[in-house]
Amino acid sequence: MLKRLLLSLTLAGSIAAGAPAIAQADALASWNDGAAKARIVAFVKATTETGGKDHVAPADRIAVFDNDGTLWSEQPMYFQLAFAIDRVRALAPQHPEWKSKQPFKAALAGDMKTLAASGEHGLVELIMATHAGNTADEFAQAVRDWAKTARHPKFNRPYTELTFKPMRELLDYLRANGFRTYIVSGGGIEFLRVFAEELYGVPPEQVIGSSVKTKYELRDGKPAIVRLPEIDFIDDKAGKPVGIHKFIGKRPVAAFGNSDGDFEMLEWTTTAPGARLGLIVHHDDEAREYAYDRKSPIGKLDRGLDEAGKRGWLVVSMKNDWRTVYAPAR
Amino acid sequence: MLKRLLLSLTLAGSIAAGAPAIAQADALASWNDGAAKARIVAFVKATTETGGKDHVAPADRIAVFDNDGTLWSEQPMYFQLAFAIDRVRALAPQHPEWKSKQPFKAALAGDMKTLAASGEHGLVELIMATHAGNTADEFAQAVRDWAKTARHPKFNRPYTELTFKPMRELLDYLRANGFRTYIVSGGGIEFLRVFAEELYGVPPEQVIGSSVKTKYELRDGKPAIVRLPEIDFIDDKAGKPVGIHKFIGKRPVAAFGNSDGDFEMLEWTTTAPGARLGLIVHHDDEAREYAYDRKSPIGKLDRGLDEAGKRGWLVVSMKNDWRTVYAPAR
Repeated sequence: MLKRLLLSLTLAGSIAAGAPAIAQADALASWNDGAAKARIVAFVKATTETGGKDHVAPADRIAVFDNDGTLWSEQPMYFQLAFAIDRVRALAPQHPEWKSKQPFKAALAGDMKTLAASGEHGLVELIMATHAGNTADEFAQAVRDWAKTARHPKFNRPYTELTFKPMRELLDYLRANGFRTYIVSGGGIEFLRVFAEELYGVPPEQVIGSSVKTKYELRDGKPAIVRLPEIDFIDDKAGKPVGIHKFIGKRPVAAFGNSDGDFEMLEWTTTAPGARLGLIVHHDDEAREYAYDRKSPIGKLDRGLDEAGKRGWLVVSMKNDWRTVYAPAR
Repeated sequence: MLKRLLLSLTLAGSIAAGAPAIAQADALASWNDGAAKARIVAFVKATTETGGKDHVAPADRIAVFDNDGTLWSEQPMYFQLAFAIDRVRALAPQHPEWKSKQPFKAALAGDMKTLAASGEHGLVELIMATHAGNTADEFAQAVRDWAKTARHPKFNRPYTELTFKPMRELLDYLRANGFRTYIVSGGGIEFLRVFAEELYGVPPEQVIGSSVKTKYELRDGKPAIVRLPEIDFIDDKAGKPVGIHKFIGKRPVAAFGNSDGDFEMLEWTTTAPGARLGLIVHHDDEAREYAYDRKSPIGKLDRGLDEAGKRGWLVVSMKNDWRTVYAPAR
């Protein structure tokens, strides 16, 4: 007992000192051995090794992760959009007018082309109609209920099984080294909070995302947070550093994304002094997931690919750098 | 060495188990022994004792504190307003028009009566003119510089020395029992973040407050968060539960305030099931601080006093329950 105690203390000491313990390398077992994995491990070592010139105090070890396309898949459409469309179907009996009104008509018919053609305005209208009016608790329950039965059209698996195993290992690995991991997503904050703790080990207070305005009121004498049909904040592109500053008030030391929507977040993170890590997941794996970048309407990665080299950002090839893509079904 | 190690482990064990260790009672040394102190200790014991019916998991031990009038003084005016007025003076040379324009003229003359008469509109104008236009880093520096030289008119001490020692002990005591302590203030989030860590041990990511909109942009090629002259969020009254829900995404188990601006935060906290603590600091100590409540334009406490009894909120008498008011000067 005492021996085990002392052993665990010694081990804790060696991790705190940033020793490249085998236990830590194994933590990234779904990453192929190669430059990408080595770069990640070197960054963690540099920022955590006591007395090193790039040492970062534990309180400042902030790592920010995009979600769609970075922590889970985002094709053929953002999972939250699939939720919104399913919710239009669920709510349709109470809205007979939707049968002849766009973009609801297209959503009901599964006509993705017309839906896409409705543009940002149409999508916002869809989100407002399906994501507001109820209380925060009711909304979270609707998301949970949906996730139980919805299936991804290509993989025929629950959406919650389509998280990337290498990225989940990376989240764990960073946390084991004293980092706090935040999700900074263009998706809805309250949608994500339903999943973040269970899927990624990220508690609600470390989820930042887009939001609708809310209002505190008494409903049947009981206090509730009510979701209003009005955009509060769009946590995308230049909005990501704004969201990070608002919620965390510190500049991150590592940022992980996959599209040009993450460009400013990576820029904000990696232009600060000291060792910084900017990482882009490149979807080049048609066989195991999807292959898309410069021309994709979803998760477009163009400027990021052009500038990653000169900015020192690590571009990770899903095809070559990842041994496994998805976490196994439970 | 080993003996000390084992001792510390044993001690940690007894704290984790919620034993009413003497060390814990001493943690509230600036509180007079009496009903208020006993109630606080009983609440902490109930929520942390393993196996107890009111046990709260560490991840859910969220405690929220108002700042002005709860953690530091707020008379004769909010300290942030004193900063704004001093800043009008500092910026006046660049704004000759302020000499003849209200509310700036009143601020320059120290004419508090006219300033107050300018109402909410005038105060917002004052805040926008003095709190926006610069980057977040520049603003924080201006606040730090101000705090070094500004003195409170009654006590002739730096504002940062006017924090309440009993409340700082309470913050420490809750954290020692696994609570995370958040500040939820009507004051500005970026103003508060300058002080929160040093004064209260509360890191930036656990400060929630009112805010202006900000924008991410490159200034001289360097990324910056720029403060815009537009209100983003008012974290007061019914805004407090909204801010808590947005930033934390969990309902607190303890809430600490002093005015009717904290009413909804206390209501939101204490109407959830399980052991909950709502506490109001009552300023009834003219000799050591100030005495004010129902009629005060600043920190008005009226409905809170009326309803504290039936809602089970603990009203703390500064005069009778606190042995010491201010933390000693360093």
